Amino acid sequence: MTRVYNFSAGPAVLPEPVLERARDEMLDWNGTGMSVMEMSHRGKAFVSIAERAEQDLRDLMRVPENYRVLFLQGGASAQFAAIPMNLLGERRRADYVNTGAWSKKAIAEARKYAEVNVVASSEADGFTSIPPFETWQRDPQAAYLHYTPNETIGGLEFPWIPDSGDVPLVADMSSTILSRPVDVSRFGLLYAGAQKNIGPAGLTLVIVRDDLVGHATPQVPSVLDYRVQAEAGSMSNTPPTYGWYLAGLVFQWLKAQGGLEAMETLNRRKAQKLYNAIDNSAFYSNPVEPSARSLMNVPFTLADPELDGLFLKEAEQAGLVNLKGHRSVGGMRASLYNAMPEAGVDALVEFMADFEQRKA
Amino acid sequence: MTRVYNFSAGPAVLPEPVLERARDEMLDWNGTGMSVMEMSHRGKAFVSIAERAEQDLRDLMRVPENYRVLFLQGGASAQFAAIPMNLLGERRRADYVNTGAWSKKAIAEARKYAEVNVVASSEADGFTSIPPFETWQRDPQAAYLHYTPNETIGGLEFPWIPDSGDVPLVADMSSTILSRPVDVSRFGLLYAGAQKNIGPAGLTLVIVRDDLVGHATPQVPSVLDYRVQAEAGSMSNTPPTYGWYLAGLVFQWLKAQGGLEAMETLNRRKAQKLYNAIDNSAFYSNPVEPSARSLMNVPFTLADPELDGLFLKEAEQAGLVNLKGHRSVGGMRASLYNAMPEAGVDALVEFMADFEQRKA
Repeated sequence: MTRVYNFSAGPAVLPEPVLERARDEMLDWNGTGMSVMEMSHRGKAFVSIAERAEQDLRDLMRVPENYRVLFLQGGASAQFAAIPMNLLGERRRADYVNTGAWSKKAIAEARKYAEVNVVASSEADGFTSIPPFETWQRDPQAAYLHYTPNETIGGLEFPWIPDSGDVPLVADMSSTILSRPVDVSRFGLLYAGAQKNIGPAGLTLVIVRDDLVGHATPQVPSVLDYRVQAEAGSMSNTPPTYGWYLAGLVFQWLKAQGGLEAMETLNRRKAQKLYNAIDNSAFYSNPVEPSARSLMNVPFTLADPELDGLFLKEAEQAGLVNLKGHRSVGGMRASLYNAMPEAGVDALVEFMADFEQRKA
Repeated sequence: MTRVYNFSAGPAVLPEPVLERARDEMLDWNGTGMSVMEMSHRGKAFVSIAERAEQDLRDLMRVPENYRVLFLQGGASAQFAAIPMNLLGERRRADYVNTGAWSKKAIAEARKYAEVNVVASSEADGFTSIPPFETWQRDPQAAYLHYTPNETIGGLEFPWIPDSGDVPLVADMSSTILSRPVDVSRFGLLYAGAQKNIGPAGLTLVIVRDDLVGHATPQVPSVLDYRVQAEAGSMSNTPPTYGWYLAGLVFQWLKAQGGLEAMETLNRRKAQKLYNAIDNSAFYSNPVEPSARSLMNVPFTLADPELDGLFLKEAEQAGLVNLKGHRSVGGMRASLYNAMPEAGVDALVEFMADFEQRKA
């Protein structure tokens, strides 16, 4: 068995020790004589797995007491609908920031339920910068302010948290959660699909402040009603138990790595190595304004797009896979989530230098 | 490692060869150097897994060409909302049959979106029988007729398929799907949470006739819009890839067992052994009308409920676990899904006889 360096944007690489443990426990978890997949979600064994996962996440992110942590299904895309359905309450208006492909999807879905006010957009410059906060045209009556701290496709990341005052701040953290510490108390609601930094696809994390729970429209599907799920400990219906278990293993692994402070140090070093390689070359380039570059998703293009296919083919032969950029951006994209080892980035940088020398 | 006989109602026992293969492929699927969990859902490897799974399911169930198969998230409970949101169209009314706990949940959720007409109910007799078809008060203008072919909690199963004429028939098959052949062409839509006979929790199967796709209310969350998901091959957002893969392994296993005809023969034999043991005893009893007894979920009570705790404790010591009945019914429940080996039923029957002899 040869493992590759997998730069996929998601579903994405998972920590090898997590996969090894999942493998070893596949037919018998902790002497129960069954797989975690086979356990009743209401049984003692699974409840202990679920509770530990939540506690470890709370420890890692220092989630304040007055926030609920929900383990749901449907992906961030389901939350694009659930958020307005749960948070609008009597108001009909919500503020959204548009910094890329995922912002746009969130906006399009919210328009089914709310009058969406786009407070700022960087579409004019191809989503390569973040609109300065002082230019945002905010609505003081908005039910909430939504933004996307990290745009997985454009490779754009907020280095700061917007100050939304009394308006609850809502963030799609799918591709940045757990990559570094974040002050949860600045947010009304955080959410993330699991398939980047948490675990397998099919699990969605929602961290929501107590006072925002309980205002859903009667038409919200029960499984997406934060009050229903919060009161049931995310078990109003059968939760994605195996994903929850794997997320718990990832949380344990993160703690063993030194927590989110240690991950930030590592992630900054990994990203810096790749951006340096790009910036110090006349062959590779990244269009994003340096202060807004993502630590997690690094798109880059080759000076000659005719070489894209060869680059991908040779990279794959070198064990560096899933580097093809999103079709809307072109070129390459290397996603450097927590589970991507620094050695993977080193190997990529080395390959890029070698390729440039031979082909540029 | 000692595997137990796990009679959980769901999440439930999976075929051991499926778990063994998942274990062996955990860090490296088919020489790709990565886990299925780590694969991009749009990559060649996962697409091949997804397509094979769908084809195997179509083969097993003989799904006609004019039906879409969707691999979704949210469980059957999400479908309780998605069905009226997708199928009502211009009509506001839907027919529902009430034969137990899961029927009631489907009805409660549908009432958020539709005028629900309960065409028949067996609540008066404690859900121990199926209301005869000729007594059903159907609405010829209903958008669809919904029923629950197998009630997981009450242990009640329809031995026949209602003839709903021109009104599309919709069935929650969560706990009966794949247990025996079914004529899909009789239905407008079938759906099932995976965690009983398909795979792990977090995957939901929807099989829907083409002409019923495309009529959703504008307020349906996109991830639950059948048209959106059908057009995107169930990938309008990231699907639960690992669950999809495991479902595919289960489908392969079912084919190797001889398909659904073979499963029906085995399942009838397993259930008959347990019902015989109950009926031939003055100590155990099952309240369900014999013609409507479930092949999958067999609730039974002890003549002396004081002995329930001891029964469960001794059963567990004998490697027979998760036999506790649902709190609404009491007593015991043995779920006999496809993956429960006949030897597990034999062991249970033997234990029951021994317990009765010692304690009755």
